[in-house]
Amino acid sequence: MANQSLNLEKVLAFQREFVRERDWDKFHTPKNLAMALAGEAGELVELFQWLTPEESSDLALDPVKAKALRHELADILFYLLRLVDKFEIDLEEALWEKLHENARKYPIELSKGSAKKYTELKDDLGK
Amino acid sequence: MANQSLNLEKVLAFQREFVRERDWDKFHTPKNLAMALAGEAGELVELFQWLTPEESSDLALDPVKAKALRHELADILFYLLRLVDKFEIDLEEALWEKLHENARKYPIELSKGSAKKYTELKDDLGK
Amino acid sequence: MANQSLNLEKVLAFQREFVRERDWDKFHTPKNLAMALAGEAGELVELFQWLTPEESSDLALDPVKAKALRHELADILFYLLRLVDKFEIDLEEALWEKLHENARKYPIELSKGSAKKYTELKDDLGK
Amino acid sequence: MANQSLNLEKVLAFQREFVRERDWDKFHTPKNLAMALAGEAGELVELFQWLTPEESSDLALDPVKAKALRHELADILFYLLRLVDKFEIDLEEALWEKLHENARKYPIELSKGSAKKYTELKDDLGK
Repeated sequence: MANQSLNLEKVLAFQREFVRERDWDKFHTPKNLAMALAGEAGELVELFQWLTPEESSDLALDPVKAKALRHELADILFYLLRLVDKFEIDLEEALWEKLHENARKYPIELSKGSAKKYTELKDDLGK
Repeated sequence: MANQSLNLEKVLAFQREFVRERDWDKFHTPKNLAMALAGEAGELVELFQWLTPEESSDLALDPVKAKALRHELADILFYLLRLVDKFEIDLEEALWEKLHENARKYPIELSKGSAKKYTELKDDLGK
Repeated sequence: MANQSLNLEKVLAFQREFVRERDWDKFHTPKNLAMALAGEAGELVELFQWLTPEESSDLALDPVKAKALRHELADILFYLLRLVDKFEIDLEEALWEKLHENARKYPIELSKGSAKKYTELKDDLGK
Repeated sequence: MANQSLNLEKVLAFQREFVRERDWDKFHTPKNLAMALAGEAGELVELFQWLTPEESSDLALDPVKAKALRHELADILFYLLRLVDKFEIDLEEALWEKLHENARKYPIELSKGSAKKYTELKDDLGK
Protein backbone atom coordinates (compact mmCIF):
# COMPACT_ATOMS: atom_id res chain seq x y z
CA MET A 1 0.00 0.00 0.00
CA ALA A 2 2.99 2.29 -0.13
CA ASN A 3 2.56 5.57 -1.94
CA GLN A 4 -1.17 5.71 -2.26
CA SER A 5 -2.35 8.68 -4.20
CA LEU A 6 -5.35 9.53 -6.29
CA ASN A 7 -5.20 11.30 -9.63
CA LEU A 8 -8.48 13.08 -9.23
CA GLU A 9 -8.35 14.94 -12.53
CA LYS A 10 -8.29 11.70 -14.48
CA VAL A 11 -11.17 10.25 -12.45
CA LEU A 12 -13.27 13.40 -12.70
CA ALA A 13 -12.72 13.55 -16.46
CA PHE A 14 -13.70 9.87 -16.83
CA GLN A 15 -16.84 10.43 -14.77
CA ARG A 16 -17.84 13.51 -16.77
CA GLU A 17 -17.50 11.61 -20.04
CA PHE A 18 -19.31 8.57 -18.58
CA VAL A 19 -22.24 10.77 -17.56
CA ARG A 20 -22.24 12.82 -20.77
CA GLU A 21 -22.30 9.76 -23.04
CA ARG A 22 -25.30 8.36 -21.17
CA ASP A 23 -27.08 11.71 -20.96
CA TRP A 24 -27.26 11.25 -17.22
CA ASP A 25 -26.45 14.79 -16.23
CA LYS A 26 -30.15 15.51 -15.78
CA PHE A 27 -30.20 12.87 -13.04
CA HIS A 28 -27.03 14.12 -11.38
CA THR A 29 -28.39 17.11 -9.50
CA PRO A 30 -26.53 17.64 -6.21
CA LYS A 31 -29.67 16.59 -4.36
CA ASN A 32 -29.80 13.29 -6.22
CA LEU A 33 -26.06 12.70 -5.84
CA ALA A 34 -26.34 13.22 -2.08
CA MET A 35 -29.19 10.68 -1.99
CA ALA A 36 -27.20 8.19 -4.06
CA LEU A 37 -24.22 8.57 -1.73
CA ALA A 38 -26.49 7.94 1.27
CA GLY A 39 -27.90 4.85 -0.44
CA GLU A 40 -24.38 3.50 -0.94
CA ALA A 41 -23.51 4.32 2.68
CA GLY A 42 -26.52 2.21 3.63
CA GLU A 43 -25.09 -0.69 1.63
CA LEU A 44 -21.74 -0.25 3.37
CA VAL A 45 -23.44 -0.42 6.76
CA GLU A 46 -25.29 -3.59 5.71
CA LEU A 47 -21.96 -5.34 5.24
CA PHE A 48 -21.14 -4.83 8.90
CA GLN A 49 -24.49 -4.72 10.67
CA TRP A 50 -24.58 -8.18 12.23
CA LEU A 51 -20.86 -8.55 12.87
CA THR A 52 -19.15 -8.28 16.23
CA PRO A 53 -16.43 -5.61 16.35
CA GLU A 54 -13.84 -8.39 16.01
CA GLU A 55 -15.57 -9.99 13.03
CA SER A 56 -15.79 -6.59 11.39
CA SER A 57 -11.99 -6.33 11.50
CA ASP A 58 -11.73 -9.68 9.73
CA LEU A 59 -14.32 -8.96 7.05
CA ALA A 60 -11.75 -8.87 4.25
CA LEU A 61 -10.60 -12.43 4.98
CA ASP A 62 -13.63 -13.47 2.96
CA PRO A 63 -12.76 -12.55 -0.64
CA VAL A 64 -16.43 -12.07 -1.62
CA LYS A 65 -16.95 -9.65 1.25
CA ALA A 66 -13.60 -7.96 0.57
CA LYS A 67 -14.71 -7.27 -3.00
CA ALA A 68 -18.10 -6.03 -1.86
CA LEU A 69 -16.35 -3.66 0.55
CA ARG A 70 -14.07 -2.29 -2.16
CA HIS A 71 -17.08 -1.77 -4.39
CA GLU A 72 -19.11 0.05 -1.76
CA LEU A 73 -16.22 2.35 -0.93
CA ALA A 74 -15.71 3.02 -4.64
CA ASP A 75 -19.43 3.76 -5.10
CA ILE A 76 -19.39 6.22 -2.21
CA LEU A 77 -16.29 7.89 -3.60
CA PHE A 78 -17.88 8.00 -7.06
CA TYR A 79 -20.78 10.13 -5.84
CA LEU A 80 -18.59 12.16 -3.52
CA LEU A 81 -16.37 13.07 -6.48
CA ARG A 82 -19.37 13.94 -8.64
CA LEU A 83 -20.42 16.43 -5.95
CA VAL A 84 -16.87 17.74 -5.71
CA ASP A 85 -16.88 18.26 -9.47
CA LYS A 86 -20.32 19.89 -9.59
CA PHE A 87 -19.41 22.40 -6.90
CA GLU A 88 -15.79 22.83 -8.04
CA ILE A 89 -14.55 22.01 -4.56
CA ASP A 90 -10.82 21.66 -3.98
CA LEU A 91 -11.06 18.32 -2.21
CA GLU A 92 -7.53 18.18 -0.83
CA GLU A 93 -7.92 21.66 0.64
CA ALA A 94 -11.37 20.84 2.08
CA LEU A 95 -10.02 17.67 3.63
CA TRP A 96 -7.02 19.34 5.28
CA GLU A 97 -9.19 22.20 6.51
CA LYS A 98 -11.36 19.61 8.27
CA LEU A 99 -8.42 17.57 9.58
CA HIS A 100 -6.96 20.67 11.20
CA GLU A 101 -10.35 21.69 12.58
CA ASN A 102 -10.77 18.23 14.10
CA ALA A 103 -7.34 18.54 15.73
CA ARG A 104 -8.44 21.86 17.26
CA LYS A 105 -11.88 20.60 18.35
CA TYR A 106 -10.44 17.50 19.97
CA PRO A 107 -7.39 18.57 21.99
CA ILE A 108 -5.34 15.52 22.94
CA GLU A 109 -5.47 16.11 26.68
CA LEU A 110 -9.29 16.33 26.71
CA SER A 111 -10.22 13.69 24.19
CA LYS A 112 -7.66 11.01 24.94
CA GLY A 113 -9.44 7.69 25.22
CA SER A 114 -12.83 9.35 25.11
CA ALA A 115 -15.50 9.08 22.41
CA LYS A 116 -17.27 12.21 23.60
CA LYS A 117 -18.33 14.79 21.03
CA TYR A 118 -16.48 18.10 21.07
CA THR A 119 -19.64 19.80 22.34
CA GLU A 120 -19.50 17.55 25.40
CA LEU A 121 -15.76 18.11 25.83
CA LYS A 122 -16.43 21.81 26.21
CA ASP A 123 -18.71 21.00 29.14
CA ASP A 124 -15.84 19.08 30.71
CA LEU A 125 -13.64 22.12 30.35
CA GLY A 126 -16.21 24.24 32.14
CA LYS A 127 -16.17 22.00 35.17
CA MET B 1 -9.85 23.48 -9.96
CA ALA B 2 -7.22 22.41 -12.44
CA ASN B 3 -4.93 19.59 -11.41
CA GLN B 4 -6.86 18.18 -8.51
CA SER B 5 -5.08 15.36 -6.85
CA LEU B 6 -4.99 13.85 -3.43
CA ASN B 7 -1.82 12.84 -1.62
CA LEU B 8 -3.40 9.95 0.23
CA GLU B 9 -0.24 8.83 2.00
CA LYS B 10 0.06 12.16 3.75
CA VAL B 11 -3.59 12.15 4.78
CA LEU B 12 -3.52 8.55 5.97
CA ALA B 13 -0.38 9.22 8.03
CA PHE B 14 -1.97 12.32 9.59
CA GLN B 15 -5.11 10.35 10.44
CA ARG B 16 -3.13 7.50 11.97
CA GLU B 17 -1.21 9.91 14.19
CA PHE B 18 -4.41 11.85 15.07
CA VAL B 19 -6.06 8.61 16.18
CA ARG B 20 -2.99 7.26 17.96
CA GLU B 21 -2.44 10.43 19.99
CA ARG B 22 -6.03 10.35 21.20
CA ASP B 23 -6.03 6.61 21.83
CA TRP B 24 -9.05 6.34 19.57
CA ASP B 25 -8.06 3.19 17.74
CA LYS B 26 -10.26 1.16 20.05
CA PHE B 27 -13.25 3.13 18.71
CA HIS B 28 -12.18 2.82 15.09
CA THR B 29 -13.30 -0.72 14.36
CA PRO B 30 -14.46 -1.11 10.74
CA LYS B 31 -18.00 -1.54 12.01
CA ASN B 32 -17.87 1.76 13.87
CA LEU B 33 -16.20 3.56 10.97
CA ALA B 34 -18.94 2.37 8.62
CA MET B 35 -21.55 3.69 11.06
CA ALA B 36 -19.75 7.01 11.36
CA LEU B 37 -19.61 7.33 7.60
CA ALA B 38 -23.35 6.63 7.39
CA GLY B 39 -23.99 9.26 10.04
CA GLU B 40 -22.08 11.83 8.01
CA ALA B 41 -23.94 10.78 4.86
CA GLY B 42 -27.12 11.52 6.80
CA GLU B 43 -25.84 15.02 7.52
CA LEU B 44 -25.02 15.51 3.85
CA VAL B 45 -28.56 14.51 2.90
CA GLU B 46 -29.98 16.95 5.46
CA LEU B 47 -28.32 19.83 3.62
CA PHE B 48 -30.35 19.03 0.52
CA GLN B 49 -33.56 17.47 1.81
CA TRP B 50 -35.98 20.37 1.44
CA LEU B 51 -34.43 21.91 -1.67
CA THR B 52 -35.81 21.71 -5.18
CA PRO B 53 -33.39 20.19 -7.70
CA GLU B 54 -32.60 23.71 -8.93
CA GLU B 55 -31.99 25.05 -5.45
CA SER B 56 -29.71 22.11 -4.75
CA SER B 57 -27.50 23.19 -7.66
CA ASP B 58 -27.23 26.68 -6.14
CA LEU B 59 -26.51 25.54 -2.59
CA ALA B 60 -22.92 26.81 -2.67
CA LEU B 61 -24.04 30.38 -3.41
CA ASP B 62 -24.70 30.61 0.32
CA PRO B 63 -21.21 30.67 1.91
CA VAL B 64 -22.45 29.09 5.16
CA LYS B 65 -24.01 26.20 3.25
CA ALA B 66 -20.97 25.93 0.98
CA LYS B 67 -18.74 25.50 4.01
CA ALA B 68 -21.11 22.97 5.56
CA LEU B 69 -21.05 21.01 2.30
CA ARG B 70 -17.24 21.00 2.18
CA HIS B 71 -17.16 19.81 5.78
CA GLU B 72 -19.63 16.99 5.24
CA LEU B 73 -17.76 15.74 2.19
CA ALA B 74 -14.49 15.91 4.15
CA ASP B 75 -16.05 14.01 7.05
CA ILE B 76 -17.30 11.27 4.74
CA LEU B 77 -13.88 11.06 3.08
CA PHE B 78 -12.24 10.96 6.52
CA TYR B 79 -14.04 7.78 7.50
CA LEU B 80 -13.77 6.29 4.02
CA LEU B 81 -10.00 6.72 4.19
CA ARG B 82 -9.84 5.22 7.68
CA LEU B 83 -11.54 2.12 6.27
CA VAL B 84 -9.18 2.11 3.29
CA ASP B 85 -6.26 2.25 5.70
CA LYS B 86 -7.59 -0.45 8.03
CA PHE B 87 -8.15 -2.87 5.18
CA GLU B 88 -5.07 -1.80 3.19
CA ILE B 89 -7.19 -1.18 0.13
CA ASP B 90 -5.57 0.37 -2.94
CA LEU B 91 -8.19 3.06 -3.39
CA GLU B 92 -7.21 4.21 -6.86
CA GLU B 93 -7.30 0.63 -8.10
CA ALA B 94 -10.64 -0.06 -6.39
CA LEU B 95 -12.12 3.08 -7.89
CA TRP B 96 -10.99 2.33 -11.44
CA GLU B 97 -12.16 -1.27 -11.13
CA LYS B 98 -15.61 0.06 -10.28
CA LEU B 99 -15.58 2.75 -12.95
CA HIS B 100 -14.84 0.15 -15.61
CA GLU B 101 -17.44 -2.21 -14.20
CA ASN B 102 -20.03 0.59 -14.32
CA ALA B 103 -19.12 1.24 -17.95
CA ARG B 104 -19.75 -2.44 -18.72
CA LYS B 105 -22.97 -2.68 -16.71
CA TYR B 106 -24.41 0.43 -18.32
CA PRO B 107 -23.76 0.18 -22.07
CA ILE B 108 -24.33 3.57 -23.69
CA GLU B 109 -26.96 2.38 -26.18
CA LEU B 110 -29.11 0.81 -23.42
CA SER B 111 -28.72 3.31 -20.62
CA LYS B 112 -28.76 6.57 -22.55
CA GLY B 113 -31.16 8.96 -20.89
CA SER B 114 -32.46 6.23 -18.57
CA ALA B 115 -32.13 6.00 -14.80
CA LYS B 116 -32.92 2.29 -14.81
CA LYS B 117 -30.73 0.00 -12.77
CA TYR B 118 -28.52 -2.41 -14.69
CA THR B 119 -30.70 -5.30 -13.50
CA GLU B 120 -33.66 -3.68 -15.25
CA LEU B 121 -31.61 -2.93 -18.37
CA LYS B 122 -30.98 -6.65 -18.79
CA ASP B 123 -34.74 -7.17 -18.91
CA ASP B 124 -34.90 -4.63 -21.74
CA LEU B 125 -32.28 -6.58 -23.65
CA GLY B 126 -34.37 -9.71 -23.36
CA LYS B 127 -37.32 -8.06 -25.05
CA MET C 1 -57.52 4.01 4.81
CA ALA C 2 -60.06 4.94 7.40
CA ASN C 3 -59.32 3.96 10.97
CA GLN C 4 -55.67 3.10 10.67
CA SER C 5 -54.26 1.79 13.86
CA LEU C 6 -51.45 -0.46 14.85
CA ASN C 7 -51.73 -3.18 17.44
CA LEU C 8 -48.16 -2.91 18.63
CA GLU C 9 -48.41 -5.58 21.31
CA LYS C 10 -49.25 -8.21 18.75
CA VAL C 11 -46.43 -7.13 16.45
CA LEU C 12 -43.88 -6.94 19.26
CA ALA C 13 -44.87 -10.40 20.47
CA PHE C 14 -44.56 -11.83 16.96
CA GLN C 15 -41.14 -10.25 16.53
CA ARG C 16 -39.92 -11.55 19.88
CA GLU C 17 -40.96 -15.08 18.99
CA PHE C 18 -39.52 -14.75 15.46
CA VAL C 19 -36.17 -13.71 16.92
CA ARG C 20 -36.23 -16.27 19.73
CA GLU C 21 -36.98 -19.20 17.44
CA ARG C 22 -34.03 -18.27 15.22
CA ASP C 23 -31.70 -17.54 18.13
CA TRP C 24 -31.12 -14.10 16.65
CA ASP C 25 -31.19 -12.14 19.87
CA LYS C 26 -27.39 -12.16 19.97
CA PHE C 27 -27.44 -10.21 16.70
CA HIS C 28 -30.13 -7.79 17.84
CA THR C 29 -28.07 -5.47 20.00
CA PRO C 30 -29.38 -1.90 19.86
CA LYS C 31 -26.24 -0.91 17.95
CA ASN C 32 -26.90 -3.53 15.28
CA LEU C 33 -30.60 -2.70 15.10
CA ALA C 34 -29.76 0.97 14.54
CA MET C 35 -27.40 -0.05 11.73
CA ALA C 36 -30.02 -2.30 10.18
CA LEU C 37 -32.57 0.50 10.29
CA ALA C 38 -30.07 2.83 8.57
CA GLY C 39 -29.43 0.21 5.92
CA GLU C 40 -33.15 -0.03 5.20
CA ALA C 41 -33.40 3.77 5.11
CA GLY C 42 -30.68 3.65 2.47
CA GLU C 43 -32.84 1.27 0.42
CA LEU C 44 -35.82 3.60 0.80
CA VAL C 45 -33.75 6.51 -0.50
CA GLU C 46 -32.61 4.41 -3.47
CA LEU C 47 -36.23 4.07 -4.59
CA PHE C 48 -36.47 7.83 -4.99
CA GLN C 49 -32.96 9.00 -5.79
CA TRP C 50 -33.23 9.60 -9.55
CA LEU C 51 -36.85 10.75 -9.58
CA THR C 52 -38.06 14.29 -10.02
CA PRO C 53 -40.25 15.53 -7.15
CA GLU C 54 -43.29 14.95 -9.38
CA GLU C 55 -42.25 11.43 -10.32
CA SER C 56 -41.67 10.66 -6.65
CA SER C 57 -45.33 11.45 -5.96
CA ASP C 58 -46.36 8.98 -8.65
CA LEU C 59 -44.06 6.16 -7.56
CA ALA C 60 -46.91 3.95 -6.39
CA LEU C 61 -48.54 3.96 -9.83
CA ASP C 62 -46.01 1.26 -10.68
CA PRO C 63 -47.16 -1.81 -8.71
CA VAL C 64 -43.62 -3.22 -8.45
CA LYS C 65 -42.33 0.03 -6.97
CA ALA C 66 -45.41 0.34 -4.76
CA LYS C 67 -44.68 -3.06 -3.28
CA ALA C 68 -41.00 -2.24 -2.82
CA LEU C 69 -42.00 0.95 -1.01
CA ARG C 70 -44.37 -0.92 1.34
CA HIS C 71 -41.61 -3.42 2.06
CA GLU C 72 -38.98 -0.78 2.82
CA LEU C 73 -41.33 1.06 5.16
CA ALA C 74 -42.19 -2.23 6.87
CA ASP C 75 -38.48 -3.09 7.22
CA ILE C 76 -37.74 0.27 8.79
CA LEU C 77 -40.68 -0.12 11.15
CA PHE C 78 -39.54 -3.66 11.98
CA TYR C 79 -36.19 -2.45 13.32
CA LEU C 80 -37.71 0.64 14.93
CA LEU C 81 -40.11 -1.59 16.86
CA ARG C 82 -37.30 -3.94 17.89
CA LEU C 83 -35.52 -0.93 19.40
CA VAL C 84 -38.75 0.21 21.06
CA ASP C 85 -39.12 -3.24 22.56
CA LYS C 86 -35.50 -3.52 23.71
CA PHE C 87 -35.64 -0.19 25.49
CA GLU C 88 -39.24 -0.57 26.65
CA ILE C 89 -40.17 2.76 25.11
CA ASP C 90 -43.80 3.84 25.09
CA LEU C 91 -43.89 4.67 21.39
CA GLU C 92 -47.19 6.52 21.34
CA GLU C 93 -46.04 8.73 24.20
CA ALA C 94 -42.63 9.32 22.60
CA LEU C 95 -44.27 10.26 19.32
CA TRP C 96 -46.74 12.71 20.86
CA GLU C 97 -43.98 14.26 22.97
CA LYS C 98 -42.06 14.95 19.76
CA LEU C 99 -45.12 16.16 17.84
CA HIS C 100 -45.84 18.72 20.55
CA GLU C 101 -42.18 19.72 20.72
CA ASN C 102 -42.16 20.26 16.95
CA ALA C 103 -45.25 22.43 17.24
CA ARG C 104 -43.45 24.55 19.85
CA LYS C 105 -40.17 24.72 17.91
CA TYR C 106 -41.90 25.72 14.71
CA PRO C 107 -44.44 28.40 15.57
CA ILE C 108 -46.81 28.88 12.64
CA GLU C 109 -46.13 32.59 12.17
CA LEU C 110 -42.37 32.05 11.90
CA SER C 111 -42.19 28.84 9.95
CA LYS C 112 -45.03 29.30 7.49
CA GLY C 113 -43.80 28.44 4.01
CA SER C 114 -40.21 28.21 5.22
CA ALA C 115 -37.99 25.13 5.35
CA LYS C 116 -35.61 26.77 7.82
CA LYS C 117 -34.48 24.77 10.81
CA TYR C 118 -35.74 25.93 14.18
CA THR C 119 -32.22 27.04 15.08
CA GLU C 120 -32.36 29.45 12.14
CA LEU C 121 -35.88 30.59 13.01
CA LYS C 122 -34.59 31.77 16.37
CA ASP C 123 -32.16 34.05 14.53
CA ASP C 124 -35.11 35.52 12.63
CA LEU C 125 -36.85 36.26 15.91
CA GLY C 126 -33.84 38.19 17.10
CA LYS C 127 -33.98 40.55 14.14
CA MET D 1 -45.20 -1.27 28.53
CA ALA D 2 -48.25 -3.44 28.55
CA ASN D 3 -50.82 -2.83 25.86
CA GLN D 4 -48.82 -0.70 23.51
CA SER D 5 -50.81 0.51 20.58
CA LEU D 6 -50.73 3.39 18.24
CA ASN D 7 -53.76 5.36 17.18
CA LEU D 8 -52.46 6.16 13.73
CA GLU D 9 -55.52 8.09 12.58
CA LYS D 10 -55.05 10.65 15.32
CA VAL D 11 -51.35 11.02 14.58
CA LEU D 12 -51.86 11.28 10.82
CA ALA D 13 -54.55 13.90 11.32
CA PHE D 14 -52.29 15.92 13.64
CA GLN D 15 -49.44 15.74 11.15
CA ARG D 16 -51.66 16.81 8.24
CA GLU D 17 -52.86 19.85 10.18
CA PHE D 18 -49.31 20.64 11.38
CA VAL D 19 -48.07 20.62 7.78
CA ARG D 20 -51.08 22.50 6.40
CA GLU D 21 -50.86 25.30 8.95
CA ARG D 22 -47.19 25.84 8.08
CA ASP D 23 -47.73 25.53 4.34
CA TRP D 24 -45.10 22.80 4.31
CA ASP D 25 -46.81 20.43 1.94
CA LYS D 26 -44.70 21.77 -0.91
CA PHE D 27 -41.63 20.49 0.96
CA HIS D 28 -43.18 17.13 1.76
CA THR D 29 -42.76 15.36 -1.55
CA PRO D 30 -42.15 11.63 -1.08
CA LYS D 31 -38.59 12.14 -2.30
CA ASN D 32 -37.92 14.75 0.36
CA LEU D 33 -39.64 12.72 3.08
CA ALA D 34 -37.45 9.73 2.22
CA MET D 35 -34.37 11.96 2.50
CA ALA D 36 -35.54 13.37 5.83
CA LEU D 37 -36.11 9.87 7.18
CA ALA D 38 -32.59 8.87 6.08
CA GLY D 39 -31.18 11.96 7.78
CA GLU D 40 -32.90 10.98 11.03
CA ALA D 41 -31.65 7.40 10.64
CA GLY D 42 -28.16 8.91 10.41
CA GLU D 43 -28.74 10.68 13.72
CA LEU D 44 -29.93 7.42 15.28
CA VAL D 45 -26.75 5.68 14.13
CA GLU D 46 -24.64 8.50 15.59
CA LEU D 47 -26.03 7.73 19.04
CA PHE D 48 -24.57 4.24 18.87
CA GLN D 49 -21.53 4.53 16.62
CA TRP D 50 -18.71 4.50 19.17
CA LEU D 51 -20.38 2.18 21.68
CA THR D 52 -19.51 -1.44 22.28
CA PRO D 53 -22.44 -3.84 21.81
CA GLU D 54 -22.78 -3.99 25.62
CA GLU D 55 -22.71 -0.22 26.03
CA SER D 56 -25.35 0.08 23.32
CA SER D 57 -27.69 -2.06 25.43
CA ASP D 58 -27.17 0.30 28.36
CA LEU D 59 -27.63 3.52 26.41
CA ALA D 60 -30.93 4.35 28.10
CA LEU D 61 -29.34 4.34 31.57
CA ASP D 62 -28.19 7.86 30.69
CA PRO D 63 -31.40 9.96 30.76
CA VAL D 64 -30.03 12.46 28.24
CA LYS D 65 -29.22 9.69 25.78
CA ALA D 66 -32.53 7.95 26.53
CA LYS D 67 -34.39 11.11 25.59
CA ALA D 68 -32.30 11.57 22.45
CA LEU D 69 -33.11 7.98 21.47
CA ARG D 70 -36.85 8.48 21.97
CA HIS D 71 -36.68 11.64 19.88
CA GLU D 72 -34.78 10.03 17.02
CA LEU D 73 -37.21 7.11 16.90
CA ALA D 74 -40.12 9.56 16.94
CA ASP D 75 -38.54 11.61 14.13
CA ILE D 76 -38.08 8.51 12.00
CA LEU D 77 -41.66 7.45 12.68
CA PHE D 78 -42.86 10.98 11.87
CA TYR D 79 -41.47 10.82 8.33
CA LEU D 80 -42.45 7.18 7.89
CA LEU D 81 -46.05 8.07 8.73
CA ARG D 82 -46.01 11.05 6.39
CA LEU D 83 -45.03 8.66 3.59
CA VAL D 84 -47.70 6.20 4.69
CA ASP D 85 -50.25 9.00 4.54
CA LYS D 86 -49.10 10.35 1.16
CA PHE D 87 -49.31 6.93 -0.45
CA GLU D 88 -52.38 5.81 1.50
CA ILE D 89 -50.61 2.69 2.66
CA ASP D 90 -52.33 0.43 5.16
CA LEU D 91 -49.37 0.24 7.53
CA GLU D 92 -50.58 -2.62 9.69
CA GLU D 93 -51.25 -4.73 6.59
CA ALA D 94 -47.88 -3.82 5.04
CA LEU D 95 -46.10 -4.71 8.26
CA TRP D 96 -47.78 -8.10 8.65
CA GLU D 97 -47.20 -8.89 4.98
CA LYS D 98 -43.49 -8.33 5.58
CA LEU D 99 -43.41 -10.21 8.88
CA HIS D 100 -44.92 -13.25 7.21
CA GLU D 101 -42.57 -12.93 4.24
CA ASN D 102 -39.60 -12.80 6.62
CA ALA D 103 -40.84 -15.93 8.34
CA ARG D 104 -40.95 -17.68 4.94
CA LYS D 105 -37.57 -16.35 3.77
CA TYR D 106 -35.87 -17.36 6.99
CA PRO D 107 -37.03 -20.88 7.85
CA ILE D 108 -36.09 -21.68 11.44
CA GLU D 109 -34.05 -24.78 10.65
CA LEU D 110 -31.86 -22.92 8.14
CA SER D 111 -31.45 -19.58 9.80
CA LYS D 112 -31.14 -20.60 13.43
CA GLY D 113 -28.17 -18.82 14.96
CA SER D 114 -27.05 -17.52 11.57
CA ALA D 115 -26.94 -13.92 10.36
CA LYS D 116 -26.80 -14.97 6.73
CA LYS D 117 -29.05 -13.21 4.24
CA TYR D 118 -31.86 -15.29 2.75
CA THR D 119 -30.08 -15.22 -0.60
CA GLU D 120 -27.15 -17.00 1.05
CA LEU D 121 -29.43 -19.44 2.86
CA LYS D 122 -30.73 -20.64 -0.48
CA ASP D 123 -27.19 -21.54 -1.43
CA ASP D 124 -26.97 -23.62 1.73
CA LEU D 125 -30.15 -25.45 0.74
CA GLY D 126 -28.60 -26.34 -2.61
CA LYS D 127 -25.68 -28.06 -0.96
